[in-house]
Amino acid sequence: MDAAEFRKRGKEMVDYIADYLEKIEKRQVFPDVEPGYLRPLIPDCAPQDPESFEDVFKDIEKIIMPGVTHWHSPYFFAYFPAASSFPALLADMLCGGIGCVGFSWAASPACTELETVMLDWLGKMINLPEEFLAGKDGQGGGVIQGSASEATLISLLAARTKTIRRVQLEKPELTEADIMGRLVAYASDQAHSSVERAALIGGVKIKNVSSDDTFSVCGSALKKVLDEDKASGLIPFFFCATLGTTPCCSFDKLLELGPICNKENIWMHIDAAYAGSAFICPEFRHLLNGVEFADSFNFNPHKWLLVNFDCSAMWVKKRSDLTGAFKLEPLYLQHHHQESGLVTDYRHWQIPLGRRFRSLKLWFVLRMYGVTGLQEHIRKHVRLSHQFEHLVLQDERFEICAEVVLGLVCFRLKGSNELNKALLKSINEAKKIHLVPCHLRETFVLRFAICSRTVESTHIKFAWQHISQLATALLKTWEQNHHQQLQQ
Amino acid sequence: MDAAEFRKRGKEMVDYIADYLEKIEKRQVFPDVEPGYLRPLIPDCAPQDPESFEDVFKDIEKIIMPGVTHWHSPYFFAYFPAASSFPALLADMLCGGIGCVGFSWAASPACTELETVMLDWLGKMINLPEEFLAGKDGQGGGVIQGSASEATLISLLAARTKTIRRVQLEKPELTEADIMGRLVAYASDQAHSSVERAALIGGVKIKNVSSDDTFSVCGSALKKVLDEDKASGLIPFFFCATLGTTPCCSFDKLLELGPICNKENIWMHIDAAYAGSAFICPEFRHLLNGVEFADSFNFNPHKWLLVNFDCSAMWVKKRSDLTGAFKLEPLYLQHHHQESGLVTDYRHWQIPLGRRFRSLKLWFVLRMYGVTGLQEHIRKHVRLSHQFEHLVLQDERFEICAEVVLGLVCFRLKGSNELNKALLKSINEAKKIHLVPCHLRETFVLRFAICSRTVESTHIKFAWQHISQLATALLKTWEQNHHQQLQQ
Repeated sequence: MDAAEFRKRGKEMVDYIADYLEKIEKRQVFPDVEPGYLRPLIPDCAPQDPESFEDVFKDIEKIIMPGVTHWHSPYFFAYFPAASSFPALLADMLCGGIGCVGFSWAASPACTELETVMLDWLGKMINLPEEFLAGKDGQGGGVIQGSASEATLISLLAARTKTIRRVQLEKPELTEADIMGRLVAYASDQAHSSVERAALIGGVKIKNVSSDDTFSVCGSALKKVLDEDKASGLIPFFFCATLGTTPCCSFDKLLELGPICNKENIWMHIDAAYAGSAFICPEFRHLLNGVEFADSFNFNPHKWLLVNFDCSAMWVKKRSDLTGAFKLEPLYLQHHHQESGLVTDYRHWQIPLGRRFRSLKLWFVLRMYGVTGLQEHIRKHVRLSHQFEHLVLQDERFEICAEVVLGLVCFRLKGSNELNKALLKSINEAKKIHLVPCHLRETFVLRFAICSRTVESTHIKFAWQHISQLATALLKTWEQNHHQQLQQ
Repeated sequence: MDAAEFRKRGKEMVDYIADYLEKIEKRQVFPDVEPGYLRPLIPDCAPQDPESFEDVFKDIEKIIMPGVTHWHSPYFFAYFPAASSFPALLADMLCGGIGCVGFSWAASPACTELETVMLDWLGKMINLPEEFLAGKDGQGGGVIQGSASEATLISLLAARTKTIRRVQLEKPELTEADIMGRLVAYASDQAHSSVERAALIGGVKIKNVSSDDTFSVCGSALKKVLDEDKASGLIPFFFCATLGTTPCCSFDKLLELGPICNKENIWMHIDAAYAGSAFICPEFRHLLNGVEFADSFNFNPHKWLLVNFDCSAMWVKKRSDLTGAFKLEPLYLQHHHQESGLVTDYRHWQIPLGRRFRSLKLWFVLRMYGVTGLQEHIRKHVRLSHQFEHLVLQDERFEICAEVVLGLVCFRLKGSNELNKALLKSINEAKKIHLVPCHLRETFVLRFAICSRTVESTHIKFAWQHISQLATALLKTWEQNHHQQLQQ
């Protein structure tokens, strides 16, 4: 394919994408396929000779689309939102076209410098303390990671290195392996599985801190476990606070936790993967109070800020903590400017070496929506979740399971876990809408997350009527069965 | 921006990208900017109100392009190639449009299933042993990672878990921390810095194995260090073999190393990030002989197989080794089908949770180029590197520093490192072409890598004439200075 054909096919693809997104509502949100559906539909091996674009293109509807879960359907309420917007799609096209690999400043100065400035823009939008910004000569700064999992891992590793160095100075008799064996990381029992995974990767212990009735970790809960662990010779070194937990969007109490971490020399990382985007609205910014105590902070514009995956924004107060944990400098990666204070080599800030020009997506989205446009988007989602909450509350068969703060509603039928599992099954088998469940303590709960950019009040009403009807049908059979069981 | 405007702007962007790539030769390959150039060109904060697409679009040439290193210019000979092709760009547009996050089968079945089948296609193209393929019920299989660094890290972590479990069974008196403290990973002294980094992240020791005169690790070198380390109580557990080292594209001797690793219970990972693409040509496949001894294998189609970044292909013989190292199953990620043998949940195979629909790029590229088209691309690059090699060899002022096997030529002026540093400096300051250096042992060497998809024989001739002229000018001044120094 030459440039002339790309012009033609690229425009066809633009129309295909526009059609897909404009008419996505008409597609069934969750596919009908069974595991293994795809393999029989395509050849066993790659073709020897080139096929035409037409051949490939027609297979999109025939082979791919029947197996796609439509994340941008307004009937998709599962997981958390995956951001998507037209400005971000345009920026990603440009990113592909330029096709640079920005592992160092010299590998493409624009790629590095736009990222630093965009993370400053974004940091200012959520009113992050000055220390987290790069500015012209700050010690902190931001970086785009691929995912919140990587941000958590990177901060845990930086904390590990920093703590090992400190303890080795204090207690030279301990080997690195001795210290590693005593290090403990902490996170809420509501924290995302990626925190436990980061500790597994880093080869350190991790312990859950019990959350309270509102599924939040408070200072006393952390203090209790720290005291116990220190008494038994362990070395607490890392706490991952969550703002907007995955199960129910609860918030750890930073203002209590931060001072404890600071006093105990514990690195505090804040994972606000989903909720972070909301902090651009002044009315939600208070949820971030206490960030001033943190060493690192992360949220995902690719979840809720209309920037397509992947774009996970992470900031640190001391960039030398990250780069000091990993810095390796083979000659083929060295360049003339690297000793300059102005130069950032982002390869020292992340797990992979290579990186795409992802800041273009932020630049396009922030400029073409403006802060007010993005605030509108957040506020619409929060409004819709409260609409759903009110519908649930009006139906006395149902209950709300956690405070609705942002765009997630946890709800269930009053009754057993089995009953709620059956309800979820009937919802997901009907495939008119798509949800996933969670556990809150021992309770099986349905999560209704406002996801699509184009979801409106009518979709919420439809979803609720549908759930309500399925519940009616279910309760009827359920009671009959119960009645039969009693008679047997 | 609504769908109608996206149709218009998307088509403009397609033309912009086509123009950029068609005329890239006219742009200076390396930018003129100094560190910090970008910040003064744009506002301090994101705009409150939306800006128009036109405003953003005109800033691409004004603000971004002046700071771009043009990786796809036919005058770019630095690092290794970053793949780019029109079919891959089209596929990436589609990937963005669909915008699913394929962390589990259920999150988008097509995303997972196409990946599994494409990795089988690709594995067959390089004639990987059957054990690495997923097939319908294989124990192995492939996955797309973001980068070779992640593939190395993932395999090191899997090996670490596997070894700790084995040693704990054999010696129950050892704690996990004891074992961790004794684990040692190995790689060539020519291996990429990401291998050392993987060991740092995994909290284990790593040792260099000395390469021979051809910069390859042979069996005896590995055996020597293993014997020493075992004698001193250490536990060797991981060896990363490199096919196509970054400095000079040398190849470790798999047929000697593999049996040693198998015998010693050492996980052998093969990093063929750059060279792997060449194995689709039968005449280069012999370089992969010995892969049958490996536990995991990785190469980057995003380097040399015309698939835009990121697409790093990794295979394992036992998928349970990867998934067993990390598997965590919170309820919101569980789904109905997950116990089925046909279902792959790729989140257990990688560091991040989220993932893009990257296999679309492989599908488009493999079909629209066909195996023959991709072989032509590889063969053209190898032909051009030999063309450059011959030009160097005809000039007796220069020498070739390592065997030219694929698309990389290591060369230098006969003389001191300082002389060659001065030559590189004059090349990169002229900015007609772009190169990076490396060290081979103590010798400073220039790396000439064939990179661009559109590079042709004329560009090679131009590059050589240019280097040759700069060398003439340099040697003249150099001799004068030398003469003056002698007279002083």
